[in-house]
Formats: sequence, C-alpha cells, structure tokens
Amino acid sequence: MRTALVIGTGLIGTSAGLALAGRGVTVHLVDHDPEQARTAAALGAGTDDAPEGPVDLAIVAVPPAHVAATLADVMRRGVARGYLDVASVKGGPRRELEALGLDLSAYIGTHPMSGREKSGPLAATGDLFEGRPWVLTPTRDTDTEVLNLALELVALCRAVPVVMDADSHDRAVALVSHMPHLVSSMVAARLEHAEEAAVRLCGQGIRDVTRIAASDPRMWIDILSANPGPVADLLADVAADLDETVQALRALQSSDEAKRREGVTGIEDVLRRGNTGQIRVPGKHGAAPTVYESVVVMISDQPGQLARIFADAGMAGVNIEDVRIEHATGQQAGLVQLMVEPKAAPVLTAALRERGWAIRQ
Amino acid sequence: MRTALVIGTGLIGTSAGLALAGRGVTVHLVDHDPEQARTAAALGAGTDDAPEGPVDLAIVAVPPAHVAATLADVMRRGVARGYLDVASVKGGPRRELEALGLDLSAYIGTHPMSGREKSGPLAATGDLFEGRPWVLTPTRDTDTEVLNLALELVALCRAVPVVMDADSHDRAVALVSHMPHLVSSMVAARLEHAEEAAVRLCGQGIRDVTRIAASDPRMWIDILSANPGPVADLLADVAADLDETVQALRALQSSDEAKRREGVTGIEDVLRRGNTGQIRVPGKHGAAPTVYESVVVMISDQPGQLARIFADAGMAGVNIEDVRIEHATGQQAGLVQLMVEPKAAPVLTAALRERGWAIRQ
Repeated sequence: MRTALVIGTGLIGTSAGLALAGRGVTVHLVDHDPEQARTAAALGAGTDDAPEGPVDLAIVAVPPAHVAATLADVMRRGVARGYLDVASVKGGPRRELEALGLDLSAYIGTHPMSGREKSGPLAATGDLFEGRPWVLTPTRDTDTEVLNLALELVALCRAVPVVMDADSHDRAVALVSHMPHLVSSMVAARLEHAEEAAVRLCGQGIRDVTRIAASDPRMWIDILSANPGPVADLLADVAADLDETVQALRALQSSDEAKRREGVTGIEDVLRRGNTGQIRVPGKHGAAPTVYESVVVMISDQPGQLARIFADAGMAGVNIEDVRIEHATGQQAGLVQLMVEPKAAPVLTAALRERGWAIRQ
Repeated sequence: MRTALVIGTGLIGTSAGLALAGRGVTVHLVDHDPEQARTAAALGAGTDDAPEGPVDLAIVAVPPAHVAATLADVMRRGVARGYLDVASVKGGPRRELEALGLDLSAYIGTHPMSGREKSGPLAATGDLFEGRPWVLTPTRDTDTEVLNLALELVALCRAVPVVMDADSHDRAVALVSHMPHLVSSMVAARLEHAEEAAVRLCGQGIRDVTRIAASDPRMWIDILSANPGPVADLLADVAADLDETVQALRALQSSDEAKRREGVTGIEDVLRRGNTGQIRVPGKHGAAPTVYESVVVMISDQPGQLARIFADAGMAGVNIEDVRIEHATGQQAGLVQLMVEPKAAPVLTAALRERGWAIRQ
C-alpha cells in the first residue's frame, strides 16, 4: 500500500492516518468539516490535499449512520482500488450497500476494537490499534486483493486481524461489550436512590461491576441503536437466568426442606456457570487466562512509596503483571496488590521483606 | 477493654485476636477444633487457656448457622460483660436469639466489611479491618456500655464504625455485594458456550464486570442462603429494568418512527440512571468520589519499566492514586494508566516526557 484516503478524520480515522503516515504511506485526509481534516493533517496524519488519481485504499471512518451513503458515493466515483469502513456494527451497513445495488467485490467491512473515552482528531494516536483485535468481515465476493489491502492496513497499525462474518461480529460485540454495558448500568441504577449508609459499604466488587456504567449515554445510544437485535436476545437470556435465580432465592425461604434444597441447586447452578464463563475471559495479554499470584504490601499514602516498591521488585528481577491499589477507607494507609507469575511470588515476597516492606500473608 | 474471648478462630476471629493482642488486650481463644485455637495462639492472637472469670467482651466469630446457638450458650454461662457476633447477615440471628427468649441488652450484632479470598487462622492478619467499615446494629435495648465495648473493638481494629439497624444492614449488603455478585455471574455465564472468536474480542469492560464471578460458589451459597429475601427483591428490580430495556431495543427495530423514538428514550433512561448510581460508588478512599486524571504511558513488558516510571513520578513529587496496566493483546508492549489528582496530571506528564517516556495525549 502506497496511498490511502481517510474519509472522516475523527479519533479512528486520524489514528489510522497517523499510523499509516508514520510507516511511509501517502495519506489523504477528507472530512465533511474541512477544519477537522486540517487539524488531522497538522497532527501529521497526512495531507488534506485531494489525491490526483485513485488511491490504493479508501478508509471510511464516518459515524455509523453515514457509512453506507459515503461508501456508495466514493465507490461510484472510483476513488480507490479497495474500500473499507471501520464502524462498530457490520451487518446493517452491508445490507444497506447491497440494497443500493453496488458491486461489493472491492469492499470489506472492518471493525478495530480500539476505543477511547475521548473523540475527535486531537484524541488520536498512531498507537491506538497496537495489539488490539481488528475484525475483518470478508464475504465470498470480496476480492483477495482487497482483503490483502485490509490485512496490510491492520499490520501497519500493529493490530491483530480476526476474520468473522458480519452477523457473527455483531453478535460477538453484543456479547462482550453491549450486553455487559447495559447490565452494568442496571446494577449501578440500583444505587440511584439508595441510603447513604448503604452506599458507604460499597467495596471493590461493585466498583468493578459498575465502572463502565459511567460512560456517555449519547455514544452508547448510537452503538446500541445500530445493534438492537443481538443485544436484546442476550438480555433476554440474562432475564431468564434472573427469573430462575429469584425463584431459587424465594425457595430458600421456604419451610419445606426439599424446596430449600432446590433453591440451593438453582443458586449453585448460576454461580458455577458464572465460574465457567469467567475463566474464558482473556487476560490482558489476550491469551489464555494466566493465573497470577498476588503479593500484598502495606504502604502509606506518600509520594515515592510505589516507586520504592517497584524499584525493589525490579532489582529482584521480578516483572509486575498487574497492580491494584486499595487505600483504606478514610485513612492515609493502604495496600498495594502486586500480581506476578506464580514462580515469582516467593522471590518478590522475600525481596520486599528483606527491604523492610510489610507483606500480607 | 482489658480482656476478650474470641469464639471461633477462623479468618475474622483470629484477625480480631491479632489486632487486640497487638494493642495490649488479653485475648482468650476458643474453637470447636482445639487445633485451630492453638494455631491462632501460636500466631500471636492470644492464649488458648480459658479465662479465669468473665471477660469484658465475647466475640462470636463462628459460621452464620451457628451464631445464635453459640451466643445463647455463652450468654447463659455469663462468660462476658458484653457479647457480639461478626456474621455477614444480621436480621436472622437476632430473630433467632429473640425466639430463644434471651435478654439481649448485653448483645450487639456487628459485621466487619473485610474479607479475603482465603479463610482460616493462617490467612488472618492484624490489619484486616484497617480503614474498612464495621457495621454495628444496636437496638433501643442495647446497653450503652455494650455499644461502647463494640466501638472500642472497632477502634482497636482501626476500622470505621457505621451504625445501622439489622434489617437495613441486610438490605445494604444485598445491594452493594450480594446482588452485584449474582449479576456478574449471569453476565459471565453468557460466555460459557460462546464461540472462541467472540471471546477473543473481550476487553477491559467485560473483564471488570465479570471479575467477581470467579469466586467460590460454596462460600456464596452460604452468604446468599442467609439473606435470600433482600437479594431476591433487588434482582426482581433488575429484572424489571431488563424487561423494559429488551422492549426498548425491540422498539428500535420498528419501522415506526414514533416507536423508535420511544426505544431511544427507554435506552437513554437506563443509561442515565446508571450514570447517576455509578457516581455514588465511593472511591478507594471511601470518601465522596474523587475524580482523578489519568496519564497514560507506553511501556515494554520488561522488569524495571514500572519501577522507572514510579521513581520518575516520585522525583516529580507526584503521588500515584491508582494504576491500571493494560498490556496489548499478544504483544510485548502495553500501556500503564496512572491516576493522579487533576492538578498533578500536567506535572507528571511533563516530568515523564522529560525523562523520555512516551505519553499518550
């Protein structure tokens, strides 16, 4: 790939431009707001001059509702050898394009699984896609040349290509992103009118479950509006589990011993299925889940404490895989939980103890 | 308080013994398994010799199902001036004691909000309760002297006392702990039979929502069995939200513009209520939620990288409030998100840039 045209210079389009331009591709930038395209160009994502002839790849990075019309326009004008979009839902845009009667052999629908809480060209970075999955949805009609252009884009952005069909993709993002988001909101919604004394008892569990409920509703309405069917199906499955669990809990209150045993069986079933599903969630390396051991260190809330811990861990040759800091409620002391490979845990514990740290057993 | 009797030397009883003994209280330890009491004594939690006369405070730290019978026994024998239990549910045990016709003026039900994934005396630590809420449930019949003994215990354990009535407590833990736990299991359960390609797309959102679904089902069956009513009521509320959300999503698929608008309103409603509830979740300091700013640094997956970052932050006088490490999928590079007070963010960014770190905008 020598030349590319990025249409829509928001977060994703500008980040792709930065990655491609940084690896020697000539990138042309266009946006319905010329000011945005100028900003992206000023950041180094390419040039806002129009290309003189067809480019190798046109990357359509406009909001989901405009994808089909924009693609139809540029494909009819023949601005590129290959065309792709980066919208977060893939079935609908494809069906819209088919309905327009376009030849889709030069088109491939894609979805980079990278996002940020910020948007617009100023939030863009050339490393946005590094190591993240980038879904490609070729069909039997997709030209191999176009698939290869898409794979080259993904490689230049240092992302990991994952091939799926469009509808499987939409069901997958409903499962791993859209459904959990709504459920998190529903748990958080229970706190809306809760008594202050109850809210004070919140710990790390509910904090984690409700973290994503803090997101911008407007963005999520757009996302959910583009994928309502698969999300509704999954929520209906959750609702069935919920109803069974409520019945099981009610059975636990029964005076009938056999009913109570049924209740225990029902509760155990949902907890065990949760165990089985949770184990499948990939760890941060994206590989099979790695079981780390944690070493818990007491610290005071002063600058430099963490630096000393990490320096001491580094001197012991131990790589910290993950960190969780739990400060004590209303206190100036806290705990740092260091996650390390199981074989490194005794090494780290000994090294930190030797250097005077209080380690929790 | 000069003397205490800990009955049940598991995680909580032994930890309380360690905290009290460390602050000069004479602690007597007893367990239905004398070996457990000997272990707790060997760890420094007190003595397994029987007290010669009544102690100041008897702390009943036996499993929930045995609380009432154990309390009835020791209260009838008059082993202490005051009695408390530490079970995670408070309404049921109180009603059992009332049914036994005991004078409850010398008794107070309590619940330290401290837990670990491990159990038994070997998992105990004298700092288990530090900075954590410890719920006290006095009634109008509770002697002030007994309330003060409980407050002294909480202070000696460096916990934060929170006074509630027993049923409010049970509803509160259903809200902030038991209900979120079951919902997390239900989200995770959806992954049980999911396609591998879909599971590969999991990101930090679903990872956080499903983290607590990894817990031991046996322990959670005990917890939920002791509090089925309030948990069922909350799950029924979640079920009502779920049903409305499924209907709103189905409306989004309608060809009728007015119906689609209704769907958007329904989705927006649950997302906004989620926002409102999430904001109330206390941060790790247990105070009103502090809004930190994040500074995101690129690292390679080598020992010493984090040490250098924290050392550099320490030299700039910046206190890191929280850390999240996000490694790139299948790559040896990753991002470290450093949470700091808003005013410290530009200081930290400048200091790290100056020392050669790549900071994400």
